Amino acid sequence: MSVIYNKVALIGLGLIASSMFWAMKRGGVAGTVSGYARSEATRDTARRIGLCDTVCDSAEEAVQDADLVVLAVPVGAMGAVAKSIAPHLKPGATVIDVGSVKRTVIADVLPHIPENVHFVGAHPMAGTEHSGPEAGFATLFDNRWCLIVPPEDTPEDPIARQEDYWRALGADIERMDPEHHDIVCAVVSHIPHLIAYTMVGVADDMRRVTDQEVIKFSAAGFRDFTRIAASDPTMWRDVFLTNKDATIEILGRFTEELMALQRAIRTGDGEQLHAYFTHTRAIRRGILEAGQDTDAPDFGRAKVER
Amino acid sequence: MSVIYNKVALIGLGLIASSMFWAMKRGGVAGTVSGYARSEATRDTARRIGLCDTVCDSAEEAVQDADLVVLAVPVGAMGAVAKSIAPHLKPGATVIDVGSVKRTVIADVLPHIPENVHFVGAHPMAGTEHSGPEAGFATLFDNRWCLIVPPEDTPEDPIARQEDYWRALGADIERMDPEHHDIVCAVVSHIPHLIAYTMVGVADDMRRVTDQEVIKFSAAGFRDFTRIAASDPTMWRDVFLTNKDATIEILGRFTEELMALQRAIRTGDGEQLHAYFTHTRAIRRGILEAGQDTDAPDFGRAKVER
Repeated sequence: MSVIYNKVALIGLGLIASSMFWAMKRGGVAGTVSGYARSEATRDTARRIGLCDTVCDSAEEAVQDADLVVLAVPVGAMGAVAKSIAPHLKPGATVIDVGSVKRTVIADVLPHIPENVHFVGAHPMAGTEHSGPEAGFATLFDNRWCLIVPPEDTPEDPIARQEDYWRALGADIERMDPEHHDIVCAVVSHIPHLIAYTMVGVADDMRRVTDQEVIKFSAAGFRDFTRIAASDPTMWRDVFLTNKDATIEILGRFTEELMALQRAIRTGDGEQLHAYFTHTRAIRRGILEAGQDTDAPDFGRAKVER
Repeated sequence: MSVIYNKVALIGLGLIASSMFWAMKRGGVAGTVSGYARSEATRDTARRIGLCDTVCDSAEEAVQDADLVVLAVPVGAMGAVAKSIAPHLKPGATVIDVGSVKRTVIADVLPHIPENVHFVGAHPMAGTEHSGPEAGFATLFDNRWCLIVPPEDTPEDPIARQEDYWRALGADIERMDPEHHDIVCAVVSHIPHLIAYTMVGVADDMRRVTDQEVIKFSAAGFRDFTRIAASDPTMWRDVFLTNKDATIEILGRFTEELMALQRAIRTGDGEQLHAYFTHTRAIRRGILEAGQDTDAPDFGRAKVER
């Protein structure tokens, strides 16, 4: 329970930023927290539920005197936001983004960052299928990874402080370079989301099976897909557009693999199918053993009261 | 709380059969329950945990005098089991299977069923990623669908009794013809499982991303995939081999759709992506409204004590 940044500014007040606020309050991590969201409705909601100590009507006002500025907007909007706040940043401040893609964000944001301010990429790997200012909760980051992705030549001090900050919010941290970050995340997160979106779309589009039937009989497998596919459309559009190279690469691998399984099904090669499914089950066991998941409902976590 | 079948025989003692046993006990649905599993280890486990009133060392013995015989073995084994028990079935008995595919099962099983015995397909759409005799629990079927799939020309009485039986186990029931059943299930369950298996396999196969990283950083999207992909390999092998036509048809649609999204990503068509993702989010809302899912952890259900 010690203050790591005296003043924190949250730009964007969705699931991640609102969870950061409640986690900061829980841990006594920040002196005061200001916030800004582009939508007036979001700002009104934030004021109503006590999200942020001060909700400002402009990003420029919110970042005044802030020691940490958090860009928590869709990945495609990071550059424009960085440009607008740049002249108002406090010397010595740290700016972070919390987006899911890093190469593009660094390329978009870094040119706007003044010499006496530091930029560090942060990617808290946590979320739910809910979005908006009311979706946040203090325990979202507990025992989840936050990848710390500093641009080349960032000095050690602001990076180490960022790591302390995320640890204080409950997260485990690991440093990664931007390119590696983007390919790892494409594999473990971006492509699985794209596939879930696709499958939900296909189901909806079937003529021999009605929408009502799809909805009525959706069992475990499909339910998990729809849960994933309910995530924020703007956020995910930007993820795919900005992590294009890794996405296209892994999609190619996926299609190749799926075609091999399709061929095994068509030719009746039960041995190949059984071997494949046994292998994936073993991978799942690895995930359990690595402690990234539990057998408990909702992976042992529950949305708790603030 | 009224006995619907005086004696029930469970052939195969995995997740579904063991859950049926606990649900029958909870509801007082059966007079006595006998059970058989091919593996001696499974029979020993069943005896140890009190699964079934009598665990028999042969399927032939288990079905003696049974009013309901439940085939709860992998889909590919249904025909052989039906053949071996056929001479020992009680006149007037009902035989059901609880497999995920119906056209093939009916074709495999029906020829062995004696004239004075009725066969009805049943597909309880419930499960977890766990398998085996210890995985079962009494509430598995509560408020889940059980599809009742009678072969053509089955008399009404045994069908209606089957429906009463599943309602007494906690399920909602709906009748469906075999062909329609298989395409609906391919869409809402089989293909999602295949895709989850594929994605987990691709992740494992990446060279630029280590297995350890995949496991370590697997976030929500990928975790859901690995959970699905941990399901029983033999069961799923048989599902795909026996529901080949519907699987291949829907895989074709899926690939087509995925290629369209891939093209949108490659050409930077953000509008198309956003529209697609917004649409799938709306489908998810439909699923919530249809009451097939809840916002609560584990869809509002929890594994409860027997």
